[in-house]
Amino acid sequence: MAELKNRQWLLAARPSGMIKESDFRWNETTVPALKDGQVLVRNLAFSFDPTQRGWMSMDTYMPAIPVGEVMKAGTIGQVVESKRPGFAKGDLVQGLFGWEDYTVNGGEGLMGLQKLPPGTDPILALSLFGTTGLTAYFGTLAVGNVKEGETFVVSGAAGATGSVSGMIAKIKGCRVIGIAGGREKCEWLTKVAGFDAAIDYKNEKVGEALTRHCPNGIDVYFDNVGGEILDDALARLAHGARVVLCGAISQYNDFGSKAPTGPKNYFNLIMRGARMEGFLVFHFLQRYPEAITDMLKWYSQGKLKNQIDLQHGLENAPQTIIRLFTGANFGKQLLKLADPQ
Amino acid sequence: MAELKNRQWLLAARPSGMIKESDFRWNETTVPALKDGQVLVRNLAFSFDPTQRGWMSMDTYMPAIPVGEVMKAGTIGQVVESKRPGFAKGDLVQGLFGWEDYTVNGGEGLMGLQKLPPGTDPILALSLFGTTGLTAYFGTLAVGNVKEGETFVVSGAAGATGSVSGMIAKIKGCRVIGIAGGREKCEWLTKVAGFDAAIDYKNEKVGEALTRHCPNGIDVYFDNVGGEILDDALARLAHGARVVLCGAISQYNDFGSKAPTGPKNYFNLIMRGARMEGFLVFHFLQRYPEAITDMLKWYSQGKLKNQIDLQHGLENAPQTIIRLFTGANFGKQLLKLADPQ
Repeated sequence: MAELKNRQWLLAARPSGMIKESDFRWNETTVPALKDGQVLVRNLAFSFDPTQRGWMSMDTYMPAIPVGEVMKAGTIGQVVESKRPGFAKGDLVQGLFGWEDYTVNGGEGLMGLQKLPPGTDPILALSLFGTTGLTAYFGTLAVGNVKEGETFVVSGAAGATGSVSGMIAKIKGCRVIGIAGGREKCEWLTKVAGFDAAIDYKNEKVGEALTRHCPNGIDVYFDNVGGEILDDALARLAHGARVVLCGAISQYNDFGSKAPTGPKNYFNLIMRGARMEGFLVFHFLQRYPEAITDMLKWYSQGKLKNQIDLQHGLENAPQTIIRLFTGANFGKQLLKLADPQ
Repeated sequence: MAELKNRQWLLAARPSGMIKESDFRWNETTVPALKDGQVLVRNLAFSFDPTQRGWMSMDTYMPAIPVGEVMKAGTIGQVVESKRPGFAKGDLVQGLFGWEDYTVNGGEGLMGLQKLPPGTDPILALSLFGTTGLTAYFGTLAVGNVKEGETFVVSGAAGATGSVSGMIAKIKGCRVIGIAGGREKCEWLTKVAGFDAAIDYKNEKVGEALTRHCPNGIDVYFDNVGGEILDDALARLAHGARVVLCGAISQYNDFGSKAPTGPKNYFNLIMRGARMEGFLVFHFLQRYPEAITDMLKWYSQGKLKNQIDLQHGLENAPQTIIRLFTGANFGKQLLKLADPQ
């Protein structure tokens, strides 16, 4: 194969505070020759996730991305050339590739190299049936253990994980209250996603609104944001409550500079016989098939909606990740490079 | 009955910072006439517990003690006179009475009025088989869910609850590491209580010592102290760890002044798929008989030791509670007024 041009975004610096475009550097190179066991993938779409802020700063559940290397992203692509048994030109694949037109992969990385069924919609596979949707499923059911009639509160409720977790809690018979930023998102939660109530943290006092909407306290709080809103929820737990720790986006831009703020109301866990439990979706790897079966059923019944925020073009990747941290995104943040051939 | 003199300690002020003797006021009065349904109890021994700092400051799981009223304490006494069916002169009783020679009680209060079997040792009933021992039992087994071969760490390890929780974890086959203040307490933990190791927080860096003693991380951390030591433990959790929130004595003297410090390493709960769970012993009220049966068996086998710190005389009650917060106590802090007749 003739030498193939490859455009990339490299990590230029460990971010300080809010991610900036200058934390990335545009690079143009060529694709290296394939070795045995590798495939050459044309990248079709990237997932954008709050956890990427951690990868840029420090070792987390995987080593920090080295400065000067390609920025990593959950990616769906299509095989262009294969020297790997079981993979052929045209196959759709998923993995932790990076912000570049083409990626060479031999099955390495946190997610390995997954072959997707022919005809898979890359957008749906990166959103509702991707990491964020699966995170919502296991967080709500396996960690939160929601029960019919309980009061369920979720922050980051218009985000990719928050919105799905609220819809799943609703399917399970909970009263569902979402916390999101701005009137448009809140209207979407109650009018489209089927939430019972929404709290606009940009225009309401969250604590007072929670008191009003949760007269018997909060049974399950699904936390995507950390910070003050986590404390507001901890102060209002019902007896035996579960706090599902999924993320802390309000804190991520402090990574690498100062320690995150601890929840000062954690002591209420004692008073209410309550628990706060964290998880990563990878901890439930063996139960993915069960989750996808359930969610496909709910999706086909119209009970689960897939709200995405789709941007276009590799050159816009840095601006797109910044949308996540300013709260500009509405639903799952994605960026599309190309359609499958 | 002739008018009976009663000496009392009243709560004089809501404490600011460390409890001071001036937070209490000595009072001499007489016992009021008994009404139907009431008993007159001669108090024999008081329990001293970190949670009393909360009662003095604010509404917790019960309303704050009103300023000007008798300071409350878990108490064992003996009935002097009864106008309550089922209670007779000479009966041993337990309840949330107060710092005074005599208490009139009609079954009210958080603990009600419990009759104890004749011959009960008041000291044992207020320690190993009292609230602190039961707290250790349920915290270690029901909340911590310890399993054979796990690494169990407890702070406040020479205290009434911490020492019993460590011994119970040891009975269940855990490797047990205790954190306590001072060489004498640490020696007691390893030489008498049977702990595998002890960390002296007054003379060692707790984080470094935990790293050394827990090469595979901490499976269960039983927290009695909060603050920096909680963060040190959170930073070293094993996958699937349980943090048992029992108390936070390092924070209690801030009650009523500033908010407690939140555990800034709480985010590690996500990375390790771990949970932090609180409880009050009263949440397990219906399982007390099971606990007492188990603990009696272990005590009679010599596997559970009862370490007490016994002070004497009503006049010394304020100095005795202060011992708890300076860490002067070694084992369960008690104060004895009299022997049963």
